[in-house]
Amino acid sequence: MKEEECGGGEIGSSPEAMNPVAAEEVEAAEEVAAPPNFAMVDNGVFRSGFPERTHFGFMETLGLRSVMVLVLVNVRRYLCPEPYPVENAKFLRMNGIRLFHFGIVGTKEPFVNIPEDVIREALEVVLDARNRPLLIHCKRGKHRTGCLVGCLRKLQTWCLSSIFNEYQSFAAAKARISDQMFMEKFDISSLKHLSTSLS
Amino acid sequence: MKEEECGGGEIGSSPEAMNPVAAEEVEAAEEVAAPPNFAMVDNGVFRSGFPERTHFGFMETLGLRSVMVLVLVNVRRYLCPEPYPVENAKFLRMNGIRLFHFGIVGTKEPFVNIPEDVIREALEVVLDARNRPLLIHCKRGKHRTGCLVGCLRKLQTWCLSSIFNEYQSFAAAKARISDQMFMEKFDISSLKHLSTSLS
Repeated sequence: MKEEECGGGEIGSSPEAMNPVAAEEVEAAEEVAAPPNFAMVDNGVFRSGFPERTHFGFMETLGLRSVMVLVLVNVRRYLCPEPYPVENAKFLRMNGIRLFHFGIVGTKEPFVNIPEDVIREALEVVLDARNRPLLIHCKRGKHRTGCLVGCLRKLQTWCLSSIFNEYQSFAAAKARISDQMFMEKFDISSLKHLSTSLS
Repeated sequence: MKEEECGGGEIGSSPEAMNPVAAEEVEAAEEVAAPPNFAMVDNGVFRSGFPERTHFGFMETLGLRSVMVLVLVNVRRYLCPEPYPVENAKFLRMNGIRLFHFGIVGTKEPFVNIPEDVIREALEVVLDARNRPLLIHCKRGKHRTGCLVGCLRKLQTWCLSSIFNEYQSFAAAKARISDQMFMEKFDISSLKHLSTSLS
């Protein structure tokens, strides 16, 4: 995948490496593009917007064991969560990466009700060290991912101001007070025993 | 420090823990506030704006071995870099955290010329695993820190679009084209042999 996308290959692994111009081209082609809104959350926990084919090379550098997607399910339009794009699923399969697929049912976007039980279940996956390195993503890496990360920060005893600050730095102009209320109200007590795997 | 600032103490470590109201207060007091623009850059590498006394409790949770400050030195107004604030220096000393203090001389703010040799020297510190966990900070965690992290991303073979995207997510409305040009032009070739300690 990476080679297809980025024209990779080690420098020095081909005769072109002897030619300075060609070597430079190979070096430039080795660059990787991060998915939108990509960031490191904690040891072995990453977040981003939806990765596309151009980001697979970058994803390979993370040595991922799992990917978690938080899919929005609009019950007025779909009966079940949208399937994961075929080429993403293929990339994961080829790299032995497990997919955790969570559907978040929303009825009145943009005022989506984030379901607490889904976030709780997703957090259990994140907190299980056996699933990491893990990339959490949704569509834009702003709202659903932001809420999940915010709840993770609560477990790390971050104060709400710091949590909202981080949420807003990703959501920017699209920050939602409903998301912040969700994070504020989210009860972490049942998850505290799992949080020891975080830094 | 943490106890002074956050009224810390373990839950159950005092008689008040027997009283549900007091226990709740103790639990609330355990929350920590992250410095502005805080984020994880890589394993054991963090970035932020200038930490103040209220952030010391949070900093303790990072288990830092070093702090790196990138101080702006205006040669028209100062002859030497501003000293690190006394209470910050005291916090570092009490926690056995080493301070790396880099002065960046600027003559015509906001068009500060980031000196390549200082960034190179700072990168060598970041790339030395013995200095990590390490927090890199400047005043706002936007420009000087942003340039240093951008150069680190070049070493990680991130493409310029991804580097600028990350830089802009911290600098926001204060993003500077001069900083982006600095990152674009920065030559990483002399540092490549040190980058193996990064993920």
